[in-house]
Amino acid sequence: MKSLLSRRSIRKYTKEDVSDELLHRLLADSEHTQTMGNLQLYSVIITRDREKKRQLSPIHFNQPMVEGAPVVLTFCADFRRTTLWAEERMANPGYSNFLSFVNAASDTLLYCQTFCNIAEEQGLGLCYLGTTVYMPEKIIDILKLPKLVMPIATITLGWPDEMPAQSDRLPLNAIIHSETYHDYSPEMIDRFYTPKEELPQNRQFVAINHKETLAQVFTDIRYTKKDNEALSQTLLAALRRQGFMD
Amino acid sequence: MKSLLSRRSIRKYTKEDVSDELLHRLLADSEHTQTMGNLQLYSVIITRDREKKRQLSPIHFNQPMVEGAPVVLTFCADFRRTTLWAEERMANPGYSNFLSFVNAASDTLLYCQTFCNIAEEQGLGLCYLGTTVYMPEKIIDILKLPKLVMPIATITLGWPDEMPAQSDRLPLNAIIHSETYHDYSPEMIDRFYTPKEELPQNRQFVAINHKETLAQVFTDIRYTKKDNEALSQTLLAALRRQGFMD
Repeated sequence: MKSLLSRRSIRKYTKEDVSDELLHRLLADSEHTQTMGNLQLYSVIITRDREKKRQLSPIHFNQPMVEGAPVVLTFCADFRRTTLWAEERMANPGYSNFLSFVNAASDTLLYCQTFCNIAEEQGLGLCYLGTTVYMPEKIIDILKLPKLVMPIATITLGWPDEMPAQSDRLPLNAIIHSETYHDYSPEMIDRFYTPKEELPQNRQFVAINHKETLAQVFTDIRYTKKDNEALSQTLLAALRRQGFMD
Repeated sequence: MKSLLSRRSIRKYTKEDVSDELLHRLLADSEHTQTMGNLQLYSVIITRDREKKRQLSPIHFNQPMVEGAPVVLTFCADFRRTTLWAEERMANPGYSNFLSFVNAASDTLLYCQTFCNIAEEQGLGLCYLGTTVYMPEKIIDILKLPKLVMPIATITLGWPDEMPAQSDRLPLNAIIHSETYHDYSPEMIDRFYTPKEELPQNRQFVAINHKETLAQVFTDIRYTKKDNEALSQTLLAALRRQGFMD
């Protein structure tokens, strides 16, 4: 899969549409991804309607790709379909619990990533929106998600109209561990992170945010303790509302 | 990615090893997968040691592929490395919360699935073990995972020594929704699930389990309410122990 080696997130798309034929073929092919007990614990909401994109946009912090993409896909953990099937078949389903949420979310993310891999192989560009789990209740309302369905990931999709630089990544040795977890000494942290910190774009990123270190941009601005703690409560509340914490 | 269309989970492997060179290349290439804020919130524990596989085996219900595979990979959500980096850089990390767990678990599963896709493209066979989240505390002990590291997915990997039938999947219409979630009527459930229920292997599956319906095999034997509820508590306890619920 050569496309993987040159991949970058794409946030600007041409005016060309993504045909239903292509979209459906990619979504169907992705179904070959492994899934728990072959239950396929996911659903995908396809947003093409301009008004729906306008409603979704603020939930994703008004990032312009939501309204700018021909297609927005919301991948949802879904134990409702399986539960309805069980109820129709004299079976007693027991999936309104946290383990079942984790199982369905796992199925959903694996399916989503195969879709991303093969969509990019077709030349499509996409951006993964992590904001989906920040304000799930609003997405639940807009997409009319019933109990046991939870939004997990959003992808904006279209034909690329930009070619941004590729992001750097940590060296492989920073993420693999042989047999047991090797903890990270300060020397290892230096070795793994200094090359990233010294990249011109990251130095600039620190400067424009008036911070001393790159890590501070993450902890003080992008992903703060205060926000994370508040959003954790929002997320748990949404899981309760969707019936996954009974 | 032609390999996707013919994929099946592989549980029997030849005696041929998977070289470190190939394994490391695939793990490194997978790093191109999108990741939250380019933080790469995952680690992979590589198990090759026979004794370690023997210890992991009962956690995965003694499924023979754990001891039979040349390589077992445990993909872990990891906010520890990022936290240590922040602490070394005069930054105040705030990732010991549930949202951060979900963010790291998402990163981990997306990375894991790209790895699965490109490993299968190379002709490797693998089996995804959902059992990882059932007894996480034992995995944490065996692999010596520190706080803010949580096992999420396990892959057994090797060269295929079997060619099982491909699993059936639901028709695409069963999993996609246009603009808003369309709920499933009994007629839709019949239309989507009857072909699956009528497959000879699934009829046999019902018969050998002495059940009336395929759904009952799932609700009464494979994934029961009682087990799910007990394992939900185990999983939440492990998340607390790993420091993700402060």
